[in-house]
Amino acid sequence: MSLFHGLSAFPITPTDKDGRVNGDELFLLLDRIVKAGPDSRGNTGVNSIGLLGSTGGYAYLTRAERQRAVAMAADFIGGRIPLIVGIGALRTDEVQELAKDARDAGADGLLLAPVSYTPLTEAEVYQHFLAVAGVTDLPICIYNNPGTTHFTFSLDLLKRLSQIDSIAAVKMPLPQGQEIEDNLAQLRQNTADKDGFAVGYSGDWGCAAGLLAGADTWYSVVGGLFPSQALKLARAAQGGDTQTVQHIDQFFQPLWTLFKEFGGMRVMYAAANILSLTDASPHLPVLPLSPADKERVRKAIKTLNELS
Amino acid sequence: MSLFHGLSAFPITPTDKDGRVNGDELFLLLDRIVKAGPDSRGNTGVNSIGLLGSTGGYAYLTRAERQRAVAMAADFIGGRIPLIVGIGALRTDEVQELAKDARDAGADGLLLAPVSYTPLTEAEVYQHFLAVAGVTDLPICIYNNPGTTHFTFSLDLLKRLSQIDSIAAVKMPLPQGQEIEDNLAQLRQNTADKDGFAVGYSGDWGCAAGLLAGADTWYSVVGGLFPSQALKLARAAQGGDTQTVQHIDQFFQPLWTLFKEFGGMRVMYAAANILSLTDASPHLPVLPLSPADKERVRKAIKTLNELS
Repeated sequence: MSLFHGLSAFPITPTDKDGRVNGDELFLLLDRIVKAGPDSRGNTGVNSIGLLGSTGGYAYLTRAERQRAVAMAADFIGGRIPLIVGIGALRTDEVQELAKDARDAGADGLLLAPVSYTPLTEAEVYQHFLAVAGVTDLPICIYNNPGTTHFTFSLDLLKRLSQIDSIAAVKMPLPQGQEIEDNLAQLRQNTADKDGFAVGYSGDWGCAAGLLAGADTWYSVVGGLFPSQALKLARAAQGGDTQTVQHIDQFFQPLWTLFKEFGGMRVMYAAANILSLTDASPHLPVLPLSPADKERVRKAIKTLNELS
Repeated sequence: MSLFHGLSAFPITPTDKDGRVNGDELFLLLDRIVKAGPDSRGNTGVNSIGLLGSTGGYAYLTRAERQRAVAMAADFIGGRIPLIVGIGALRTDEVQELAKDARDAGADGLLLAPVSYTPLTEAEVYQHFLAVAGVTDLPICIYNNPGTTHFTFSLDLLKRLSQIDSIAAVKMPLPQGQEIEDNLAQLRQNTADKDGFAVGYSGDWGCAAGLLAGADTWYSVVGGLFPSQALKLARAAQGGDTQTVQHIDQFFQPLWTLFKEFGGMRVMYAAANILSLTDASPHLPVLPLSPADKERVRKAIKTLNELS
């Protein structure tokens, strides 16, 4: 399978309160992902690690810390799983530098969101991607996340971007007011000119449905901390086993509820605190969950751990 | 009049393509603002300069360049007009440093937008403002601009923020689906506990109506480049002279049309290019206007210059 396929796990990036990445704690998270799957029955493990995604707080880290995080992660992973790195930033020249930094530090692929302050036009986003694709040969995944970037890709823009040589995939949000089957079919049709162009989804609670519908990838927040359980859900969905998907999904329900209420990042920090993997909090102004809400996370983890 | 009252002019910040601020070109823009009004008939000039607003591209500049821009501007202005400085950034600790930098470099007041990547809660924005207010005595204006920050303030949050000692004003977007008179009355009611709390608007085409309705401030993009003409409109509106406002506003109409179509920043860069004040372009990925659209800007300037 190519780089942007299967289960891609997006961990948080533990830092101290000044935004310096804690390598030892990052390794604990990466180790869980690397060791999940493969098993004696021939199952394979997590298909890629998505470092410095939205959950990984890329937007809040300096260039130097982003470079350190990639270098440390690439070194720790040692080629056992492909490494995808988020390189989004406000300025095109900044992103070009981040793309080269990530390549030089050992990334296998790049994830690029059109981060915006001034609302961007389609022409601006196209030129931005073209300029970034021009500085490295690494395959790029379009990161379509209107909830954080406030840019909405049209089908036509996705089609044009998919025709740029190194742009190999798109990470879509769950469709609103449209069945995921229809959304996927529309995307396939518009990117059909590019052999092997991969279409995947984020928004964990709808991604098993995406894989069941034939999507290539689940870009998973929960997979960054609970890779074994996410793998079970992903493999059942990739195998087209609707009944097993429904069974497994029940164990994730309390967590999905929390994700919808607080966003994945806040919940994953709380969960990592509960599991004693790190004491780190999100970057202020993003606040950690309250003790009462952390208690709900604790219960959700307990439910998830009942999945055998 | 206190700091956040009257016409506040927000210029672009000319930079080279690497994002380094060009002091000489910035001085040309500031000089136009400083010299607009006062005249022999006792009219006063522009009431404040808003450096590093959205139009001033603060979000795209490094901390070092923001510091340089403030220091150069304060030095050039030499106290002739109060200087308000935009200090928004993603992280609370970053904003605290920017607030201290601006104070040390000579700012008279601060403008703070809740810039976001991860969507923020009301509690998070409240704590963010409280933390920033804690590091400097300078008066702070709440910068409410959902179009760029993607955060929407509730009336209750504005009320609570207005009760923080150094928070002295709010810069509102034009209301959607509500008359500006009603919006202003609602804001006055909710911030009535704070003596002299100033309520002003941005969104140039609706701001004369705001002043006519009794708003304290017009935070003006056009005032950053065409201060004399903006002053005429502001003074007529502040004087309650609806007929003169309507007359003057006609000369601005072609520019308002372009602002709505392209956003103020892209249009003001084009206008500054046309006036030979700078060759600078917006920061990529934001693109300069096309030659055909620049021609429309040229015509709009011609119309504005017919205002005598």
